[in-house]
Amino acid sequence: MADRIFRVNMTKLTTSVEKVPAKWAAYGGRGLTSTIVAAEVEPTCHPLGPKNKLVLAPGLLSGTVAANSGRLSIGAKSPLTGTIKEANAGGTAAQFLARAGVKALIIEGRPKKDKWYSLALTPDGVTIKKEKKLIGKGNFKVVQSLTEKLGNKTAIISIGQAGEMKMASANISIMDPDGGLRSSGRGGLGAVMGSKKIKFITIDPEDQKVTIARPDKFKEANRTFAKALANHPVSQALGQYGTNVLVNIINEAGGLPTKNFTTGQFAGHESISGETMHDTMSQRGGKIKHNCHAGCVIQCSQVYNDAAGKKITSGFEYESIWALGADCCVDNLDQIAMADQIMDDIGIDSIETSVAMGVAMEAGVLSFGDGAEVLRILKKEVAKGTALGRVIGNGAGSVGRVYGITRVPVVKNQAIPAYDPRAIKGIGITYATSTQGADHTMGYTIATNILNVGGKIDPLTKEGQVELSRNLQIATAAIDSTGMCLFIAFAALDDEKCLPALIDLINARFDIALTGDDVVNLGKYILKTERAFNIAAGFTSVDDRLPEFFYSEKLAPHNVVFDFTGQEIDTFWDF
Amino acid sequence: MADRIFRVNMTKLTTSVEKVPAKWAAYGGRGLTSTIVAAEVEPTCHPLGPKNKLVLAPGLLSGTVAANSGRLSIGAKSPLTGTIKEANAGGTAAQFLARAGVKALIIEGRPKKDKWYSLALTPDGVTIKKEKKLIGKGNFKVVQSLTEKLGNKTAIISIGQAGEMKMASANISIMDPDGGLRSSGRGGLGAVMGSKKIKFITIDPEDQKVTIARPDKFKEANRTFAKALANHPVSQALGQYGTNVLVNIINEAGGLPTKNFTTGQFAGHESISGETMHDTMSQRGGKIKHNCHAGCVIQCSQVYNDAAGKKITSGFEYESIWALGADCCVDNLDQIAMADQIMDDIGIDSIETSVAMGVAMEAGVLSFGDGAEVLRILKKEVAKGTALGRVIGNGAGSVGRVYGITRVPVVKNQAIPAYDPRAIKGIGITYATSTQGADHTMGYTIATNILNVGGKIDPLTKEGQVELSRNLQIATAAIDSTGMCLFIAFAALDDEKCLPALIDLINARFDIALTGDDVVNLGKYILKTERAFNIAAGFTSVDDRLPEFFYSEKLAPHNVVFDFTGQEIDTFWDF
Repeated sequence: MADRIFRVNMTKLTTSVEKVPAKWAAYGGRGLTSTIVAAEVEPTCHPLGPKNKLVLAPGLLSGTVAANSGRLSIGAKSPLTGTIKEANAGGTAAQFLARAGVKALIIEGRPKKDKWYSLALTPDGVTIKKEKKLIGKGNFKVVQSLTEKLGNKTAIISIGQAGEMKMASANISIMDPDGGLRSSGRGGLGAVMGSKKIKFITIDPEDQKVTIARPDKFKEANRTFAKALANHPVSQALGQYGTNVLVNIINEAGGLPTKNFTTGQFAGHESISGETMHDTMSQRGGKIKHNCHAGCVIQCSQVYNDAAGKKITSGFEYESIWALGADCCVDNLDQIAMADQIMDDIGIDSIETSVAMGVAMEAGVLSFGDGAEVLRILKKEVAKGTALGRVIGNGAGSVGRVYGITRVPVVKNQAIPAYDPRAIKGIGITYATSTQGADHTMGYTIATNILNVGGKIDPLTKEGQVELSRNLQIATAAIDSTGMCLFIAFAALDDEKCLPALIDLINARFDIALTGDDVVNLGKYILKTERAFNIAAGFTSVDDRLPEFFYSEKLAPHNVVFDFTGQEIDTFWDF
Repeated sequence: MADRIFRVNMTKLTTSVEKVPAKWAAYGGRGLTSTIVAAEVEPTCHPLGPKNKLVLAPGLLSGTVAANSGRLSIGAKSPLTGTIKEANAGGTAAQFLARAGVKALIIEGRPKKDKWYSLALTPDGVTIKKEKKLIGKGNFKVVQSLTEKLGNKTAIISIGQAGEMKMASANISIMDPDGGLRSSGRGGLGAVMGSKKIKFITIDPEDQKVTIARPDKFKEANRTFAKALANHPVSQALGQYGTNVLVNIINEAGGLPTKNFTTGQFAGHESISGETMHDTMSQRGGKIKHNCHAGCVIQCSQVYNDAAGKKITSGFEYESIWALGADCCVDNLDQIAMADQIMDDIGIDSIETSVAMGVAMEAGVLSFGDGAEVLRILKKEVAKGTALGRVIGNGAGSVGRVYGITRVPVVKNQAIPAYDPRAIKGIGITYATSTQGADHTMGYTIATNILNVGGKIDPLTKEGQVELSRNLQIATAAIDSTGMCLFIAFAALDDEKCLPALIDLINARFDIALTGDDVVNLGKYILKTERAFNIAAGFTSVDDRLPEFFYSEKLAPHNVVFDFTGQEIDTFWDF
């Protein structure tokens, strides 16, 4: 069955299934969501208005057995940043959408009346249903209620209360194979889904499967590819300690932003480290390894239990742990895990929300280190939509504006994550230039600045950082189009067999003849398409800058500032 | 005594008195504040950070006996809009600053410690004093306490709790000759003063007077000028009914934005009209005429008493009455007057705050028409700095973002005032193109669109509106530099003797030979200087647009949308 475009109009409450236009045929994942958003969304429109569109696209390899290919890209104009946005996540949805023959699902318009809906997608099309029962409920209740009814052969995409309330940090949740949640976390895409009054989407691919044009070639390429992934030392560390292996590493590097970005090392780092977490999970009978989608060979996810052996959370990532831990000075991993669970349930970005808490701590709304109050605010304020809850739910920039704080770590209004750009300068270039606001995943220079993957560039020097970020952002945009998890990048940078095998996979899937250059050009095309959207939306090079305090306040222990001139940053776009 | 620049550095806690640089000599008021801000403030700096500067400059004629010349310009980078900002007001400060020989007072830096200060200015310079007693107090208490100590021959400039809390709608208050308050209302300049930790500024000119180079010429020109002002029918209407004469006029024109800009006429308009207000004041022993500064011949201010004959408020303007009245559907003038008093006391822009209430009503925070709840929110939330109070105190855009509302009437994040741009299209061009966000006073096309002053251009047609707004914005920038109240514009547009007399006044004051062309060129220079600052701060033509809903939602009773294309709007800058 040929892939098709599934379209839902929430103003008219109509649906259609369309042929894929020839110009979109070569794209998948982020390449496709950004192409469609750029083609169909007015760059100056209100992100929560009827003119914005929510676009969901599985990657080019999603739905196949290719290792680590189960990521779903979701795109729109972001209510947090005002830029174009793509956020991708694992879970079962990408694979089921691909199997159902969905090249992209485009959701447009906005209901005229204040009523809620759900969407049910099968290979035949989409049905719009009225929804009442699950409105006001958290994601876990949604998933539990729907799987009881539909079994676990239906994928579920949903929003929590944050998305219903159109908070700019609301994420979109995707059920994983065990009924846990993965999140398209950043940029407030959940608010866009909420503005369209869609509480959840179910996907039942029935008995459909993805067709592989050249199955033998595909199998062979996948063997090489999976081996390269599994053998890389970073993959292995990720399997052992999860992404949280980074707490001690980044602390040691002096780049662990602490106490709302006032210093680069956290005294309580041992209490929240990957090593401590690993030992705690071992003692409590959690899972050290866990995959967020079928076919993952890295298994960086885990299940973190409480002292009584009951699951608190999974998909418990370094950036979230850093944000509530070091940035808010909370040195209690159980409190952080509980906050992670609540944020998953409310459906709100755990990076943005936790950095917002750090700014609120600086404003005196609560004290640094007060994890109990963080939990109370999440449950009683954010989930309930009180004024304070909404201020925090709208992100770090929102808290900064409302409380008149000047030390607010955001770029294009999106919170800077877990790597201080003063002590790890390459990532500062990524934060500044990314088409989507501050986001480490857009060009993860930590690989080369800290982990010595793909070579070694001193994190404290300016030299080579712009080029490093540029190359990684181009590669990332291409990877984000394949359905692949970004963690394939470590093997791709170090193992010469990895990237050719990935290209072979795509070629075997579609019977085409992509080269390495084609992949680079795809990455460049995506970045330029996204940037053109942003420029049309009113962004300029002035927006490609870090906040003032990074240039004037020295970060201990290296006592460094971010010292790139605007002109130097702008050379990023020389390609 | 030659005028000088008084400079205060709040980082170092030092002050100085400097010669006026030759390049600044020709400027006063807005021409000077914008010149200094453009020259000395980094356009990309944080408005509440140490790099922003607060600049106060009396107009070229302030401190003389010239009629209506007592306006003080205050400039900075705005925390509300992010643009350059100038807001001017009456009161005694401009005249006293001019008499003290102050060309401009520049306040820069930010204290490193969290302590409050006041400034005491005399012709000898500025003294920085620690302040504790009046911190947390409203403006009325500040004025009362200081006048008790200093008498009424000292001018007072102060901020209320809103400025202390750095709310983006905080204004700066200036005491009028009777101990009442006038406000440099728009754009959050009070937050800039608060960020510099200055609670109030006192100005004692001692026995100094402004020198007039050619006193006879000056007296003669002033006679002609004052006569032109006093004779104009709009001046007379303003004296009789105050600016609130406009409620019935704009309602009749179908351009009175009602219920958060969802319709153009307010059923309760009679209850809040200038005529009702006039009769109420007459019955209760208020003052129909009142001047906000010595030498005003129009006297559009008034004193509005409660039923017991006790003063509630003065300087009770159409735009504030519209905002709480029609826009929030409150048809009770006493409640609106009480809200006006509270907003003056807290020190917060009554347009921005009331439009923010309207958006909050749409969000369901309170009900349309609930004046009692408005009063409670002002007293218990805004003045106390609760989360809700701060969201509202940060303006209409803030409420819209925090509550995910898309019908938010702002341009460059500043609330659109009392004239709907769909039904009065000229003012829409002013809102869109103004260098300072939506502001009717920047180019008051109502004169020609509605009041038939300076000709007549149909408010519902597109033809001629861009040119009208351009000419008025240029003229306004020049007028704002003289210290003159904008209400001289009516006479200037209709009476051929008025503008030459104004130019004669300036020439006689300084013994120079300005021509009409010079005045126009001054206006153009100011607009271009301000725009260059904004462009360097990251603004583009995309920011010169009205919100989406003005283009798509028809306004009753004329059922019209705002239908200028971006290209048409951008021709504004063709000069």
